[in-house]
Amino acid sequence: LALGLWRRQAALAAAREDEEEKELRQRFMAPPVSGLRELRRRRRELRSRMELLIMETQAEVCRALADLDPGASFAVDSWERKEGGGGISCVLQDGEVFEKAGVNVSVVSGLLSEEAARQMRSRGKSLKAKDGKLPFCAMGVSSVIHPKNPHVPTMHFNYRYFEIEEADGTKQWWFGGGTDLTPTYLNEEDAIHFHKTLKEACDKHDLKLYPKYKKWCDDYFYIKHRGERRGIGGIFFDDMDSPSKEEVFQFVKSCAKAVVPCYIPIVKKHCHDSFTPEEKLWQQLRRGRYVEFNLVYDRGTKFGLLTPGSRIESILMSLPLTARWEYMHNPPESSKEAEILEVLRNPKDWVH
Amino acid sequence: LALGLWRRQAALAAAREDEEEKELRQRFMAPPVSGLRELRRRRRELRSRMELLIMETQAEVCRALADLDPGASFAVDSWERKEGGGGISCVLQDGEVFEKAGVNVSVVSGLLSEEAARQMRSRGKSLKAKDGKLPFCAMGVSSVIHPKNPHVPTMHFNYRYFEIEEADGTKQWWFGGGTDLTPTYLNEEDAIHFHKTLKEACDKHDLKLYPKYKKWCDDYFYIKHRGERRGIGGIFFDDMDSPSKEEVFQFVKSCAKAVVPCYIPIVKKHCHDSFTPEEKLWQQLRRGRYVEFNLVYDRGTKFGLLTPGSRIESILMSLPLTARWEYMHNPPESSKEAEILEVLRNPKDWVH
Repeated sequence: LALGLWRRQAALAAAREDEEEKELRQRFMAPPVSGLRELRRRRRELRSRMELLIMETQAEVCRALADLDPGASFAVDSWERKEGGGGISCVLQDGEVFEKAGVNVSVVSGLLSEEAARQMRSRGKSLKAKDGKLPFCAMGVSSVIHPKNPHVPTMHFNYRYFEIEEADGTKQWWFGGGTDLTPTYLNEEDAIHFHKTLKEACDKHDLKLYPKYKKWCDDYFYIKHRGERRGIGGIFFDDMDSPSKEEVFQFVKSCAKAVVPCYIPIVKKHCHDSFTPEEKLWQQLRRGRYVEFNLVYDRGTKFGLLTPGSRIESILMSLPLTARWEYMHNPPESSKEAEILEVLRNPKDWVH
Repeated sequence: LALGLWRRQAALAAAREDEEEKELRQRFMAPPVSGLRELRRRRRELRSRMELLIMETQAEVCRALADLDPGASFAVDSWERKEGGGGISCVLQDGEVFEKAGVNVSVVSGLLSEEAARQMRSRGKSLKAKDGKLPFCAMGVSSVIHPKNPHVPTMHFNYRYFEIEEADGTKQWWFGGGTDLTPTYLNEEDAIHFHKTLKEACDKHDLKLYPKYKKWCDDYFYIKHRGERRGIGGIFFDDMDSPSKEEVFQFVKSCAKAVVPCYIPIVKKHCHDSFTPEEKLWQQLRRGRYVEFNLVYDRGTKFGLLTPGSRIESILMSLPLTARWEYMHNPPESSKEAEILEVLRNPKDWVH
């Protein structure tokens, strides 16, 4: 009898696992790094809630993109990091609508040197380590979408959470992130829609956030040697650790939920626009600038390239499929090409 | 009478200047930064001899390239640097044989901060400055040639000379340079020809130079995050300040004179080879790696991008016209693509 009961319970447990598997397949692109069961067990911890949020965001964005590009499909790679943790990279390449679209989740943990810990944080706050090593946990979702049509802008977003444990056991934590747009040609209506959607997400939490993070975005995505920003901005923040862990998480959640509504309508609106070979060429030159920013200045990329054991293919999936560099290319005055350059040189306020 | 004599002398002087102008047009791509007359006046100084050498090298290489690509022509830009000196950039773009070929001369002088002076030198030797500033002079010729045909390799060379004056008036000087090859596909015969020609240039001066500088080249052009070298090497050296200024100059001259014979025969041999779209694609992916090296690791590029007043277009003319990044591109085992990767991962000795 006891054996029968045990068998029935085991069968129920297996059925429940199947159910979970099914739910997981529906909700996420792949099983979460920490395991669904573990995430459920620690469901009240912020680490778990953030991991679920980044997994959901990945799936949401990938689905929205796949809907627009039905012929293409995402390559989904789950990878492990020898030093602890892993990630899931979803990449759509050479589709009808998207040239290259990558959405990457990573959840890594381990020990950081004091130097590496300092570099992780834009404020460069120094932390007290036990034996020179700091236990840390870092997780985030990051994505770059390069469409084919030069009238559809490139979009990037990244939302991340860090925890570092100091020698005395105190835990430092902070969030970072942002969403920004890089058009080949300026469309004011699109720029306003994009910024307005982000502003609304910010305003729900604190009216000071959007102006502050809009400016931070313009300052961060600056290609110094060109005197140009990478794009027309959006929001960017780092080291966010107040007013409280819960409130910052809610803010990050609002931003993550704003990704699809701020961008997808713009893709839908323009993905069938006609374009000339000259417009495609200008797009390719702008892609070159994108590469310059990412390889020369982007803190995340540089940190990734220098981190032993990091997955290079996931870091560099942000690079466009194709790019172009012409010597001394200067668009003629009052051309459409000069119009976007003007805005990249002198950022504008799109919403008030 | 005196007036008549003066007039005749003035006419003679003008005729001589015309002659000089003519000679200059024949020998160089543009008037030298320091002026031909000034260079003649200081003809015994090494600075002048080096400036003439880099000007000659520029013209020699440009002519050899133009001969192979008669439809295309070099854009020649003379530019000045606000802070002192200037340069001449010659760029051929979108020709029949060459996708992009740039040969740049720069001759700059001014004051360096102690920090910048340290960075200029690979050994990072620190120098004693008066009031924190060091008078310096830097000159060099540098070039990257990206051909269209994937069976013609990319070639890069750079020869440079530095002088820095310390607080007590002592002058530090050193030479640097190198020539290296980046094939899309491996051709052993070409690799041997290239290395052999460089070795012969080195061996005339000291048998120890080629092995030392061949290894330095393999070490320098390393794309750490890929575990690959940029190409199949050549020679690379920096901080060369012995046995004597004259002997190092003669060595650098031999290297500069070897540029055309080490590379041009390879271009001639393959520029009409047939190729498939797949081979062109692999070339574009390799171009992507070239961009990665130049923007992430190359000391010259990084130094240039950080130097106020440097001419960005001349620094970034090293980038290919077009490049490509595919997520997770791995060539099949024992393909021609895997063959070159093997050599980039494990450098070979091509001559003994």
